[in-house]
Amino acid sequence: MPQKPSIPKGTRDFGPSEMAGRNYIFSVVRSVFRKYGYQCIETPSLENLSTLLGKYGDEGDKLLFKILNSGDAFAGVEPSALSNSNSLSLKVCEKGLRYDLTVPFARFVVQHQNEISFPFKRYQIQPVWRADRPQKGRYREFYQCDVDVIGSKSLLNELELVQIVDDVFSRMGVRVCIKINNRKILAGLAEVCGAPDKLVDITVAIDKIDKIGLSAVKEELSEKGLSESSISVIEPVLTLSGSNAEKLATIGRILASSTVGCKGVEELGTLMKLVEGAAIRQQVEIDLSLARGLNYYTGAIFEVKALDFQIGSICGGGRYDDLTGIFGLPNMSGVGISFGADRIYDVLGGLNLFPADTDAASRVLFTNMGDAEVAYTLPIAASLRGEGVACEIYPDVAKLRKQFEYADRKGIPYLAIIGGDEIAGGIVTIKNLSSGLQQSFPKEDLASILGFLEL
Amino acid sequence: MPQKPSIPKGTRDFGPSEMAGRNYIFSVVRSVFRKYGYQCIETPSLENLSTLLGKYGDEGDKLLFKILNSGDAFAGVEPSALSNSNSLSLKVCEKGLRYDLTVPFARFVVQHQNEISFPFKRYQIQPVWRADRPQKGRYREFYQCDVDVIGSKSLLNELELVQIVDDVFSRMGVRVCIKINNRKILAGLAEVCGAPDKLVDITVAIDKIDKIGLSAVKEELSEKGLSESSISVIEPVLTLSGSNAEKLATIGRILASSTVGCKGVEELGTLMKLVEGAAIRQQVEIDLSLARGLNYYTGAIFEVKALDFQIGSICGGGRYDDLTGIFGLPNMSGVGISFGADRIYDVLGGLNLFPADTDAASRVLFTNMGDAEVAYTLPIAASLRGEGVACEIYPDVAKLRKQFEYADRKGIPYLAIIGGDEIAGGIVTIKNLSSGLQQSFPKEDLASILGFLEL
Repeated sequence: MPQKPSIPKGTRDFGPSEMAGRNYIFSVVRSVFRKYGYQCIETPSLENLSTLLGKYGDEGDKLLFKILNSGDAFAGVEPSALSNSNSLSLKVCEKGLRYDLTVPFARFVVQHQNEISFPFKRYQIQPVWRADRPQKGRYREFYQCDVDVIGSKSLLNELELVQIVDDVFSRMGVRVCIKINNRKILAGLAEVCGAPDKLVDITVAIDKIDKIGLSAVKEELSEKGLSESSISVIEPVLTLSGSNAEKLATIGRILASSTVGCKGVEELGTLMKLVEGAAIRQQVEIDLSLARGLNYYTGAIFEVKALDFQIGSICGGGRYDDLTGIFGLPNMSGVGISFGADRIYDVLGGLNLFPADTDAASRVLFTNMGDAEVAYTLPIAASLRGEGVACEIYPDVAKLRKQFEYADRKGIPYLAIIGGDEIAGGIVTIKNLSSGLQQSFPKEDLASILGFLEL
Repeated sequence: MPQKPSIPKGTRDFGPSEMAGRNYIFSVVRSVFRKYGYQCIETPSLENLSTLLGKYGDEGDKLLFKILNSGDAFAGVEPSALSNSNSLSLKVCEKGLRYDLTVPFARFVVQHQNEISFPFKRYQIQPVWRADRPQKGRYREFYQCDVDVIGSKSLLNELELVQIVDDVFSRMGVRVCIKINNRKILAGLAEVCGAPDKLVDITVAIDKIDKIGLSAVKEELSEKGLSESSISVIEPVLTLSGSNAEKLATIGRILASSTVGCKGVEELGTLMKLVEGAAIRQQVEIDLSLARGLNYYTGAIFEVKALDFQIGSICGGGRYDDLTGIFGLPNMSGVGISFGADRIYDVLGGLNLFPADTDAASRVLFTNMGDAEVAYTLPIAASLRGEGVACEIYPDVAKLRKQFEYADRKGIPYLAIIGGDEIAGGIVTIKNLSSGLQQSFPKEDLASILGFLEL
């Protein structure tokens, strides 16, 4: 009785056409990253659990996939240990799957600090795993495309990330809004509303404004112990409208009494000036309600939304002043962003923006009518490939109709029909499968012709 | 007390220069695969353990990395279960990490059989994991680059794989020997020596001939219960020398009484004839001692060795007649090979065959001497990138010496020095960091000049 094949929930198979689209996304981001001097690194899928635990909050710890120790994992485990699943799992699992690319990057920088020349500009495109409850658009395995520079405090790095976002989405033809805020502004806000110790609660609550709306955020702030008057300081900031310059002016007045707040306003102002001078094609907007959940951000924060397609943010990141401190290398400021390949895929698909040729199917299929025909075809196909033209020979002798259908289903645009007449004449008959037109060419000319052919 | 960062044994970090080399390998194999009409798929890293178990032999089962179930994995586990580590691990782990790309491919084909047009030509470049004891050159996480065609019995597919191997290594400049055998010949050999039931033992023993030598193989065959006379039939075949035609003739005579053996000789002969007509540049050799360990092969088997570098096989594969049967789709014949990226990396490094520009560092670093200089530089850098020239602006104002060193360590060949004179003259001063020569150019000409520059 054969097994019925299936894959774990929350995971996916990607067939040729999905992979063509995904590889298009990876190749665009990769080539833009490289144009700005970022270099590729890769870290292992497996990290020691001690590297991962405690970096993503209690909730994150629960979402780590743990790997059972190899060999006799349960040797020496006392029956009483079964009563505490959590501590037992840490005893029998020393390794886990990476949860994001940022913590492994921090670990990498500390571990290889003597080989790295700082500022270190790296990109990393790899899958990550989270034991989240699977649901629409949320997967247990998905790719992140991260680009970070570490070891420089200059705001030129923030500008560069905005340029990269601009280049990537402009190249893809996606109109986006790049939203910018600064964590120091949120810290200043916590100060001026008299609740500096509540910065994390305020950040977490504000982060939800897009999902739950203003009144629910206010409710959450109140539940977290913020007074009515504190909330009334925060509220107008979250709903601030007007131009970027107007927003900066208003928040500057509100935060005038907070040192950290003023520093945040100054940083944001400088960045906006750089952005204005940099001929960015996409929309760039200060959004003071932007918080970003993760707690390690300390300066600029970014989030990117598609303007013409309804989906969450497709890119986000920010500056962190002390990501590597926990691994023993303090005072390494860095800034980075992460592109969400899965959501970008949905956006490009939804807006019909994948280029026509991402599929990377062969340009031509040679028919197979027998040994003599194949012997005639083999050197022709080899010379096409030598010229960089992808082509296939149908491997089996089969009815022409079947060979047609194969080319058609695979999206191969041309069929090269080889029979006795072609061999006798030293020619190849090319049929355009969408127009049905066909024409014969000398076999020597095929490589140059197929590059331009539009029968 | 900060954690000292480390990674699990048997895993590796890849820095920029290693990744440049690895990405070069991946891009060569990928572009060759595509030229022959193979299309990319990807399968999840996590598979259900039921998909993986029993596919790689008892030894393989032990080498699977198991993932602890999420949530309370040990709920309901009786203390008595602790006495059997193996069965307990299967109770608390439903998923495992993929062990190779072949079984997931078989699972994919069966699961998606209605979306696939056969013959299905796919390639897959992804990591696999094995809980092997780590040692030099053996890792617990490593990449495989697999290319397979399934749903066609034509020997043209075998030829195509030989062509692909030839193209890949010729493009890389590596001289290789492509060794070919046929499992039916081994089956015939088992028949004519009167031990048809011992095919697997014979295969496993023969497979070790390169490592342990002829006499140890004979010893192992004897231990497995083969008689002296049986061994004496096998021995001359393993040490057969002469041209491919001579080997075919000899083995044809030896196997004349075995139907399956004759079929193997016929297949091998046909394939060799196709190969001889295909202008293969690399050495192709019949090696009747080639067995390949895995048991699912049923026809042609391949192995590729580098001629100028001492290392195990860098590529291998073969034909399987019933890989998908276990998942409920019988009679799907396929053939495929796998390129070992890690060993190919060692070969290219050892023979100094990586192209000089794999590093993909920026072409030029713009110095940063202050805000005015940066403002002058930004549009110049943007126009370079628009022309596809990778460049960076040093993000911080720093001593020129420090900026020099950064470019030097990163392998950036040119420095663009921007100071007051350059701004006043509308020029950029370019310094070649290896020759030390420098020269000024109008800023508008920079993009076209940097493409050709050899100061």
